[in-house]
Amino acid sequence: MSELTKIVLSERDMPTHWYNLNADLGAAGVELPPPLHPGTGQPLGPDDLAPLFPMALIAQEVSTERYIEIPEEVQEIYKLWRPTPLYRARRWEKALDTPARIYYKYEGVSPAGSHKPNTAVPQAYYNMKEGVKRLTTETGAGQWGSALSFACQMFGIECKVYMVKISYEQKPYRKILMQTWGATVVPSPSDQTNAGRAILAADPNSTGSLGIAISEAVEEAATRDDTKYALGSVLNHVLLHQTVIGQEVIKQLEVAGADWPDVVVACTGGGSNFGGFAFPFLRENITAGKQTRIVAVEPAAAPSLTRGVYAYDFGDTASLTPLIKMHTLGHDFVPAPIHAGGLRYHGMSAQVSALKEAGLIEAVNVRQRAIFEAALSFTRAEGILPAPEPSHAIWGAMQEALACKESGQAKTIVFNLCGHGHFDLSSYDAFLNGRLEDYDYPEEAIQESLKRLPQLSG
Amino acid sequence: MSELTKIVLSERDMPTHWYNLNADLGAAGVELPPPLHPGTGQPLGPDDLAPLFPMALIAQEVSTERYIEIPEEVQEIYKLWRPTPLYRARRWEKALDTPARIYYKYEGVSPAGSHKPNTAVPQAYYNMKEGVKRLTTETGAGQWGSALSFACQMFGIECKVYMVKISYEQKPYRKILMQTWGATVVPSPSDQTNAGRAILAADPNSTGSLGIAISEAVEEAATRDDTKYALGSVLNHVLLHQTVIGQEVIKQLEVAGADWPDVVVACTGGGSNFGGFAFPFLRENITAGKQTRIVAVEPAAAPSLTRGVYAYDFGDTASLTPLIKMHTLGHDFVPAPIHAGGLRYHGMSAQVSALKEAGLIEAVNVRQRAIFEAALSFTRAEGILPAPEPSHAIWGAMQEALACKESGQAKTIVFNLCGHGHFDLSSYDAFLNGRLEDYDYPEEAIQESLKRLPQLSG
Repeated sequence: MSELTKIVLSERDMPTHWYNLNADLGAAGVELPPPLHPGTGQPLGPDDLAPLFPMALIAQEVSTERYIEIPEEVQEIYKLWRPTPLYRARRWEKALDTPARIYYKYEGVSPAGSHKPNTAVPQAYYNMKEGVKRLTTETGAGQWGSALSFACQMFGIECKVYMVKISYEQKPYRKILMQTWGATVVPSPSDQTNAGRAILAADPNSTGSLGIAISEAVEEAATRDDTKYALGSVLNHVLLHQTVIGQEVIKQLEVAGADWPDVVVACTGGGSNFGGFAFPFLRENITAGKQTRIVAVEPAAAPSLTRGVYAYDFGDTASLTPLIKMHTLGHDFVPAPIHAGGLRYHGMSAQVSALKEAGLIEAVNVRQRAIFEAALSFTRAEGILPAPEPSHAIWGAMQEALACKESGQAKTIVFNLCGHGHFDLSSYDAFLNGRLEDYDYPEEAIQESLKRLPQLSG
Repeated sequence: MSELTKIVLSERDMPTHWYNLNADLGAAGVELPPPLHPGTGQPLGPDDLAPLFPMALIAQEVSTERYIEIPEEVQEIYKLWRPTPLYRARRWEKALDTPARIYYKYEGVSPAGSHKPNTAVPQAYYNMKEGVKRLTTETGAGQWGSALSFACQMFGIECKVYMVKISYEQKPYRKILMQTWGATVVPSPSDQTNAGRAILAADPNSTGSLGIAISEAVEEAATRDDTKYALGSVLNHVLLHQTVIGQEVIKQLEVAGADWPDVVVACTGGGSNFGGFAFPFLRENITAGKQTRIVAVEPAAAPSLTRGVYAYDFGDTASLTPLIKMHTLGHDFVPAPIHAGGLRYHGMSAQVSALKEAGLIEAVNVRQRAIFEAALSFTRAEGILPAPEPSHAIWGAMQEALACKESGQAKTIVFNLCGHGHFDLSSYDAFLNGRLEDYDYPEEAIQESLKRLPQLSG
């Protein structure tokens, strides 16, 4: 019987639990420093988070249970697209002339087109269960905003998205997608919050930023009883929800009769796609003696893991959030306008940062013309058009495959293709016509913004 | 064990043969009149088609074999997305408050986002096998052009797409998608063909039409030895290739433990999506005594099956193609600019037309605001964002489901969701903001253009 090109699972084989890495960090000798209150500098308690998040998610944030059951109502929605397919990239292997065996997980089949609904759905669910009627969030290019709009629609709660004004105006498609799913989308800065009004008073023509949009969404949630806030990456509970990805991959590799992976590759912005894909492999490294190399690929324009410092910093630009110990470029560092908008973040998930610090994962960075070259090579062999974000993972897998070509080794490489590029075609146009800018390491800007790291008394 | 939401098949369960309806038309008492040479009025011979199509496809066009084997190389490419999922629309049933059981087949998971690659791939393959180096085609909004670009890239042959100029300029995303897969895309009318130059001489500002683009693509194929032409619908071999859809559905309904469908619904433009989905059910009606109602849904703006005449007519506006006996609105009838660009066609597949004439299928038409209402109801329940074309099928299924609500019958309804709407969001924007125009039956224009039907001596 010929080898499978595409390994699909029945929804009856979908994971019933999320995997919580925090249960195994101790065994790996990794310490996860707690988030601190920005006012007191003391470790955060559940009450500090209660205005913004439902108790179930706050509990998950600090849980050390190894497996957390996925509620049946969440599983029912997951079944609209999960389990997602795993592919053997046989045509791309041939195009690269590599002896490596390359597999990729494809999360672009979700209604919103990326992995983001994996966490948007449970976040909407737990809020609904606790009586919350409305959720606010921020979005840049719109992947997270559209995922949350979809999820809120599924559970009948309202969704309000503060969308960075320049994206709202220049990239209308994801805005329309959110509205089609019933969300209210507001260009930020808006006149609906104190934070927005203050910005507009200072600069009526402000085109907005993710930092400003977070401030608006958080302010609205904190000041309305019926409303809470949802975040699409960085936090432990978000990475937890994403672990359905890696768990499925392990089952699918077994169905494929594949060797245990030598290396797994994913892109990193805030860390949720990377964590969701890689943590189940890390679990096997920690608990079962496996030795899979785990590689994070980030943009040279926002190289927190590879060029940042490991320190307590704010999660947002406006210094409103708790302090998180993470790899950071400084909370007011503004990455260059690369097309991989989902990776334009100054910081990194605390879990991913701690793993990097402990040497349990590797990280590399790459500039954007190289990632579009890799994306083009991939789509011309495999058909699927990748978004710029997962094209970082494609590039990473390609480096591993080309190294195998040099060495003659037939390694097993698995990467996460976390979303399609149907809303990113203008960036392909720029690349194909030689208009795509490259951005180098922003060394000076990083050094400047690192000077403004918060000073802790402890 | 709970009922499945989504029925997936392994690629090992993919159909190995296409189903050829022509084998069973005799048993159903249906006569399929032959295409005629536009000059002589005599039935067309294989040699008449040889300048445009490879012999393998010409043979399929006239074959009466019931099953035609799918070449292994074609199956290998199909596996990049086939078998496609079948869904039970449980959430939408609940939203419609209907006792009906609704299933839908989803073809939007293909790289090009619709059912079109099902025929683009074998067409590119047979051309490649016969030494053809280049294919030309026309495209309007770009669904067919992008499918053929993808398919040509898979087999390493060149693809040149004449794209209607107004779409080329106003809808750049599908153009970029074609270029990403290596195709050359030319706005039509162009200065590269006699046909294009003649149009431009008469009107330098012509925004083009599908008829002009066909003329350019056919002219280039007819005048270059290394080049042939590919058509995305209407012809028998195109509908043949699409029968993988209906065959998979029958297998998936079995896996789901579903009742045999009471009614199946698909949209029709040229007829390939409808035929590919419905013909395997028609086979069971003809050969196994099943009594499934088979419903075609077309736009009120291009109502060939419901308001046209059954007569010999040209397939293109410029009177270059063979004459086909079909339901037609007249070959120079220009449908209103509805958003379902893939259904803006004056004629209909000869097979589908003969079935309608024989009373073996039903047809209804609907205006576009109603189809967007149906699409919105669907996407807010099921998540998937449908293109405007399959939203006609959604509307049709919805009428059947609402009739069940009236009658209290729990019928089994299956429809074909032939593509996603990721490139159609501006039409959703128009609908959501009350800017979507409705178009009534164009009675006068139809009567006018029917006066110019070709006169046959026979």
